[in-house]
Amino acid sequence: MLELVDLTKKLPKDLYRETFPELEARLGACQRAALDAGVPVMIVFEGWDAAGKGSLINRLGQALDPRGFAVHAISAPNEIERYYPWMRRYGAMLPPNGKIAIFDRSWYGRVLVERLEGNLSKRQWEQAYDDIQHFERQLADDGRVIVKFWLHIDKDEQKKRFKKIAKDPVLAWKVGKQEWRHHRKYGKWLGAVEEMLQRTSAAHSPWTVVEATDARFARVKVFETVCEAIEQELDRRANAPAPVRQPMAEPELSPTQQHTILDRVDTSLSLEREEYDVELKKLQRRIFQLEHEIYVARIPAVIAYEGWDAAGKGGNIKRLTRGLDPRGYEVVPIAAPTKLELSHHYLWRFWNKMPKAGHITIFDRSWYGRVLVERVEGFCTEDEWRRAYREINEMERQLADFGTAIIKFWLHIDQEEQLRRFEARQETPEKQWKITDEDWRNREKYLQYRTAVVEMLQRTSTTYAPWTILEANCKLHARIKALRTVAKTLEDALERG
Amino acid sequence: MLELVDLTKKLPKDLYRETFPELEARLGACQRAALDAGVPVMIVFEGWDAAGKGSLINRLGQALDPRGFAVHAISAPNEIERYYPWMRRYGAMLPPNGKIAIFDRSWYGRVLVERLEGNLSKRQWEQAYDDIQHFERQLADDGRVIVKFWLHIDKDEQKKRFKKIAKDPVLAWKVGKQEWRHHRKYGKWLGAVEEMLQRTSAAHSPWTVVEATDARFARVKVFETVCEAIEQELDRRANAPAPVRQPMAEPELSPTQQHTILDRVDTSLSLEREEYDVELKKLQRRIFQLEHEIYVARIPAVIAYEGWDAAGKGGNIKRLTRGLDPRGYEVVPIAAPTKLELSHHYLWRFWNKMPKAGHITIFDRSWYGRVLVERVEGFCTEDEWRRAYREINEMERQLADFGTAIIKFWLHIDQEEQLRRFEARQETPEKQWKITDEDWRNREKYLQYRTAVVEMLQRTSTTYAPWTILEANCKLHARIKALRTVAKTLEDALERG
Repeated sequence: MLELVDLTKKLPKDLYRETFPELEARLGACQRAALDAGVPVMIVFEGWDAAGKGSLINRLGQALDPRGFAVHAISAPNEIERYYPWMRRYGAMLPPNGKIAIFDRSWYGRVLVERLEGNLSKRQWEQAYDDIQHFERQLADDGRVIVKFWLHIDKDEQKKRFKKIAKDPVLAWKVGKQEWRHHRKYGKWLGAVEEMLQRTSAAHSPWTVVEATDARFARVKVFETVCEAIEQELDRRANAPAPVRQPMAEPELSPTQQHTILDRVDTSLSLEREEYDVELKKLQRRIFQLEHEIYVARIPAVIAYEGWDAAGKGGNIKRLTRGLDPRGYEVVPIAAPTKLELSHHYLWRFWNKMPKAGHITIFDRSWYGRVLVERVEGFCTEDEWRRAYREINEMERQLADFGTAIIKFWLHIDQEEQLRRFEARQETPEKQWKITDEDWRNREKYLQYRTAVVEMLQRTSTTYAPWTILEANCKLHARIKALRTVAKTLEDALERG
Repeated sequence: MLELVDLTKKLPKDLYRETFPELEARLGACQRAALDAGVPVMIVFEGWDAAGKGSLINRLGQALDPRGFAVHAISAPNEIERYYPWMRRYGAMLPPNGKIAIFDRSWYGRVLVERLEGNLSKRQWEQAYDDIQHFERQLADDGRVIVKFWLHIDKDEQKKRFKKIAKDPVLAWKVGKQEWRHHRKYGKWLGAVEEMLQRTSAAHSPWTVVEATDARFARVKVFETVCEAIEQELDRRANAPAPVRQPMAEPELSPTQQHTILDRVDTSLSLEREEYDVELKKLQRRIFQLEHEIYVARIPAVIAYEGWDAAGKGGNIKRLTRGLDPRGYEVVPIAAPTKLELSHHYLWRFWNKMPKAGHITIFDRSWYGRVLVERVEGFCTEDEWRRAYREINEMERQLADFGTAIIKFWLHIDQEEQLRRFEARQETPEKQWKITDEDWRNREKYLQYRTAVVEMLQRTSTTYAPWTILEANCKLHARIKALRTVAKTLEDALERG
C-alpha cells in the first residue's frame, strides 16, 4: 500500500495561498458546528520521525478556537500508567461532546514502537489490535469522529531532515540515538506500519496516508480531511431520525419466558447468627491477608455489586471492607452520571475508576446500570443498551487480560422480602432516608427489571468475569457467600500469578 | 508539648461499647448535614509508623456513606508530581463542597519524612511551612473544615508493634529497613514533630494529638473530634449572616482618583506593518528556540492574558503560538466555572492547569477574573474578592519558588478604540459571533471595571510576577511587545537556571 504513495506530490505556493485561508475558515466553521451539535472529534497523528507532526498540529491549533480543543502528546507510559490496563490512559484523554482532541502519537504506539522496541510478546501486541478495534468501534458507534493520519516520508527524506535538525544547536537533542536506530530500521518499521494500516482501517475510523514531503501539500490534505470527516458526521446527524428513548413496556411473557434463572435461586438459604459470627471473623482475616498478598503481587481486583433495591448491598459491602486496610481498596458508589460524564461514552467514568495494579475497587452499582435502569427507564436508546452487552464484555476482557480479578454479585431477594424491608425502613425513623418514592416506583416495574436482569446475567457472564448470584433473603448467608467468593477469586488469581 | 501527652490513657471495653455506636451514628448524621450544607471536610492523619492510621481510617470509612468520602494515601511524589510545585498534588485531592477527604499522611510529609530523609535544603522545608500555612488558611477562609490528627505512641510501643508485624508472614514486608531506621531516630523525629505541631496549629486548622496506645481510646477521640469540628462549622454557618453578593456600584471618584495608572498608558504607540513583519518573524523564531531551551532546562512558564473586551487577546495569543511546537505549550481559555469548579476554592481550577516543568501554559483570561468580573458583577462576596489579592500573590509566589517564569499581560485600549472595534465586529458578518450583548453591558460599567483593574494592577504586581501593560490601540505594537516580553522573561529565567 505505502509503496504506491506518490511522495513527490507538491502544492505550488500560489495555489496554496489561494486555497489555504479558505480551508482555515472552513475548519473554524466546522468546529463551531461540531460544538453546537455536540460532536466529539479525535484526530490522530502518527508518522515517521521528522515527518512534520508538530508543525501540522500547530497549524490545526491556530485555526481552531482554543476553548474547544486539547493536544495530547503521547510518549512511553509512565510509572503510574503502567499500573493500569494499557488503553486506560487514552480513555482518560477522550474529548467530551463538542470538543476536539488531537493526538500527537497515540494508542498505535503499542503496535509500532512498543512492538518493535519494547518487550511486548507477540501475544501482547496481537491482543492490542483487538483492543484498538474495540476501542474505536465503541467510540464511533457513539457518534465520535475519528480521523487518523499517517505522515509518510521516505528514508532519504528522513535522513535529510535528521541532518538538518542535528545542525541546529537548539533542536539537536531531538535527534538522538533512538531516532537514528529507528531510521536504520526503516524497512522493518515499514512492514509494521503496513500491517497497522491494513488491520485498523475501518469505515468508521479510516487511515489517511499523507504525502508529507511537501509541507504545503500535507497541510492542505490534513485540513481537508478533517473538515470532510466532521461535515460528514454533521450531515449524518442532521439526517438521522431523532433518537428514541422510552421506558420499557411491561413485557408479555410467552410460556417459555415464565421461568427464568432467577426462579431457580434458592432464597431459603440461610445462616445462623452464631455460625455467621465465626465465619465472618475468619473470612475477614483471610481477606485482609489476601489484600496484602495481591498488593505485593500487583494484582488488581474489581468487585461489582448489583441487586434489587433493599437487597442489602450496603451492609454486604461494609462486612467486606470492615477488616481491610483502607490504603488498598476504594468503594465507588455509582449515582446518576454528571453532565461531564454524560458528554462521554458511558463506560468512560468506569474506566477512570478502575483499580491500580495491587488495589481493589468495589463498585456499589456499576456499568450494568446501562442494561438495567437505563434500559428500563428509557434513559438510553435501544441501540445503546443492546450494544452495551458487547461493550461491557470487551471492557471486562481487557481488565482480565491485565490480570484483574473480576467479581460480580447479583443480590437476589424475592418480592415478599423486598416488601417487608421497604415497610420496615419506612417505620424506622433513622432508616427513613434510605427509602424513597423511586424505590416504590422501581418495585412496580418488577417484570421489566426481571427481564433486564435475566438478559444481563445471560449475556455478560463470561469465563473471565462470571456473575455470582447471592441468595440474599438471609443477609447473613449473602454476606458470608460474598466474602467466600472474594477470597476464592483472589486466591485463584494469586495462583495464576 | 508531646512529653506531656499521657500515653497510658485507656478506654475500658464496656464504656467503649456504650459510647461508640452512638458516635458512629453521630458521625453519619454529621456527614449528611455537611452534605446538605455543602461543607467540605478534610481529615488529616499523621503519626508514627504503626500507630494505627490504617485501622482508624477504616473505622471512619465504615461509619460514613461511601458516596461522600475519598481516602488519599500519600507516598513519596512520583515522577509526574515532581514536575509540578510540590503542593499541587494535594490541591487536586481537595474535596468538593459537601464531601469528605481523608488523608493517610499528607502535605506534612514535606516537613517530616522529606525533611529528615530527603534531599531538601533548609530553605526548602522552611518555605514549606509558609506554603502549608497559606494553603490551610485559604481553605479555612473558604469555609472548609480541617481536622488534623497526630497519632502518638512512644518508642517502646512502636518497637513492640514492629516486632509483632514482622512476625506475620503476610505483613512482614510493611516493616522494612526504612521503618527501623525511622524507629532508631525516634528522638530526632520527635523534635521535628514538635516543631510541626507548634508552627502549623491555627484556630482554623488545629492539630489534635491522639494518644494511640489504646486503640479504643484513639478511636473514640478521633470520632469525637471529627464530629465536633463539623458541628462547629455547621453552627457557624447557621448563625452567619447570609452572604451578600451584589454588583459594584458606579464609583464616585474623589479628585485623587480621577487619574489612574491607566491614564498614563500611551495608547498612541504604534508600529508599521513592514517593521512588524520583520520583527514578528524574528521573535517567533526566537521564542521557538526558547521553548526548546526551557524544555531542556525544565523551566515552566505561565502567561496570563487579561484586557478589555476587543483589546485583541485572541489575535495576540495566536501570534505567540503560531511558531511554537504544540507539544510544549497549551492555551487554556477561561470561561465561567463549571458546577464542579464552583464547589471548590476558586483557585483550584487554575492550580490544576498549571504547566509541568518545561512547558508553557497560556491563559486566555485567568484567576484575575475574581477581582475583575466577579467583583464588578457581584459573583462573589466582598470578603472573597478582597482576600483574593493575597491568595493570588501566594499562589504566584509558589509558582515562582518552583522556578516558573510568570508573565501577566493587561491589554489596554481606550474607550473610543473599543467602540470602533465593537461596531466593526457588528458590521462584519463573519465576526458577529465575536460580539455579544454582554460586551455592550460590560462597556457600560467602564468606571467600575477601571477601578477594579487599577486596584488589581497595584495589588498584584510583584517582583516575581509583574504585570506588563500592552498598549493595544495598535494591535501590531501590542503583539510585538508581548512577544518581546515573553522572550526576555524566558531568557532571564534560563539565566537564573
